Amino acid sequence: MSLQRRSLLTTTVAAPLLSSWPAGAQQAQAQAPGFYRFRVGRFLVTTITDGQAMRANPTRGMVVNAEPAAVEQVLKDALIPVTGFNNPFVVTIVETGQDTFMFDTGTGGQLNDTAGLLQQNMRAAGFDPGRIDKVAITHFHADHITGLTTREDQPVFAKAEVLVPEAEWAWWTDEGNATRTPEMQRGTFGVVRRRFAPYKSRLHQIKDGAELAPGIRAVAAYGHTPGHTAFHISDGDQQLFIMGDCANRPEVFLRYPDWHFVFDVDGPMASATRKRLFGRAADERARVIGYHFPFPANGYIARWSEGFRFVPADWSSAI
Amino acid sequence: MSLQRRSLLTTTVAAPLLSSWPAGAQQAQAQAPGFYRFRVGRFLVTTITDGQAMRANPTRGMVVNAEPAAVEQVLKDALIPVTGFNNPFVVTIVETGQDTFMFDTGTGGQLNDTAGLLQQNMRAAGFDPGRIDKVAITHFHADHITGLTTREDQPVFAKAEVLVPEAEWAWWTDEGNATRTPEMQRGTFGVVRRRFAPYKSRLHQIKDGAELAPGIRAVAAYGHTPGHTAFHISDGDQQLFIMGDCANRPEVFLRYPDWHFVFDVDGPMASATRKRLFGRAADERARVIGYHFPFPANGYIARWSEGFRFVPADWSSAI
Repeated sequence: MSLQRRSLLTTTVAAPLLSSWPAGAQQAQAQAPGFYRFRVGRFLVTTITDGQAMRANPTRGMVVNAEPAAVEQVLKDALIPVTGFNNPFVVTIVETGQDTFMFDTGTGGQLNDTAGLLQQNMRAAGFDPGRIDKVAITHFHADHITGLTTREDQPVFAKAEVLVPEAEWAWWTDEGNATRTPEMQRGTFGVVRRRFAPYKSRLHQIKDGAELAPGIRAVAAYGHTPGHTAFHISDGDQQLFIMGDCANRPEVFLRYPDWHFVFDVDGPMASATRKRLFGRAADERARVIGYHFPFPANGYIARWSEGFRFVPADWSSAI
Repeated sequence: MSLQRRSLLTTTVAAPLLSSWPAGAQQAQAQAPGFYRFRVGRFLVTTITDGQAMRANPTRGMVVNAEPAAVEQVLKDALIPVTGFNNPFVVTIVETGQDTFMFDTGTGGQLNDTAGLLQQNMRAAGFDPGRIDKVAITHFHADHITGLTTREDQPVFAKAEVLVPEAEWAWWTDEGNATRTPEMQRGTFGVVRRRFAPYKSRLHQIKDGAELAPGIRAVAAYGHTPGHTAFHISDGDQQLFIMGDCANRPEVFLRYPDWHFVFDVDGPMASATRKRLFGRAADERARVIGYHFPFPANGYIARWSEGFRFVPADWSSAI
């Protein structure tokens, strides 16, 4: 993330108010840093916001198999503006006591003006990107892997091994699949070439069910992309699903899990996966993190009508 | 807040994990500070958590006019444990550009082991209690006014004027009202004497509708206590209600606004006030803060079934 980006998002937004502040007044302008910690058994989990993107006109094109009026009604029910859909980006770090795992890497400040805060918030949380041990990737869309490298194509994670789903790697490294990929996603092949290039010597493919460390497993969650993978963390009776993009914002895609998000490569498969994994989380009262859920993006799942509701976990100062 | 309390809530909870951490591993243990900022027009608003209290057996006695089975069902629907009801305490600060207003004062670390973080979180947010200009009080229950003074009865707010609702002051400073006060709340008379004592020379009574500063008004919200008062902040088309205890946790008392909370002095009046003010917030899409809503405790109100739903505002790094 560049200083320019940091300046855009924090310093300059506060400046207009600062300039009108009386000299003697308190000047408490900064937002709280964007990280949140909780435990899952012996694991210490931290969610970190990279910022968000705003999608204009979400009633048109965002849901490919629903009428604009139906989408508009859902957005209104959720008090989401029908003119601009806020799409948050939330990265997860899991400390095992031995290793520090990071799940997905954010936008690297290279995709839009309202994201790119990951490194700033990581440092506020006490994490040095150079000391992350393992970076696991749910899937290869640009908002998940651009943060692997700088604008100048240098690796951000100096020592991390990079763990990628085998099926995801197979798809996006074979350009023969381009014609079977939605046209608007074909740029992903180039993004994958570019962002993984400096990690080739320390990149490992992982299979469905692979144990990344004791208590951390890959769970096939195909559909959003051909190899999209969730991660399951468990210790004793406590468990967490890092859901990646099994659902975009819960107010829309958990409420109607059969709706297909415009970036789902295989809509019906994505919906089946969504219902299976969120159904399991609901039945087992497992904690979940969604990459595009509102920060701090962790909570529980309740069945609701024909779909689900996301119930944010209570914020706690004690970890 | 004592050092002992701070230690209990932050340092010691992290210690068991720290001690098992390898020497070379990252040690990123602290929770993010418990404050959150947003703007309402020209006003800069900060919510700050003081911590929470846990109520055991919430199905019995917490709601005075509903059967335990009905309460249990609501708690289960909301994924709230039926064995322990987490009751958060969230204080609000509003900076006008001229003055810094604080609304309610937390527990001062003197009521239970899981609260008392207000001063620590205020300082993390850049606020010095000694420089608060005005402290406005919604009502006189101990979790709202104990933070006015230390255990040694010294004032925490060295220079603040203290603004109290006239009707609240009239009730709780006249012990003749004791027999008309629920027995379990009669201790409040003594709490009021003790906590306001050092502020007598700078205490001001405010009437319903009083303008505390341009754009900040008192709104009578009687029922929870005889003089319970909300505050309305507005600038242009943006508005915020600081609701105090118009409702305890929204999952229960917004869902069924006719339920009476055990600490409502006048249950039917509290319910009427709840429906009137949250109804207005819903109709006008006003932002609200609830003192006992889960931190960061700010969002919007949607009508839902026979009551309301609370919709948390999206977290934003940009203020």
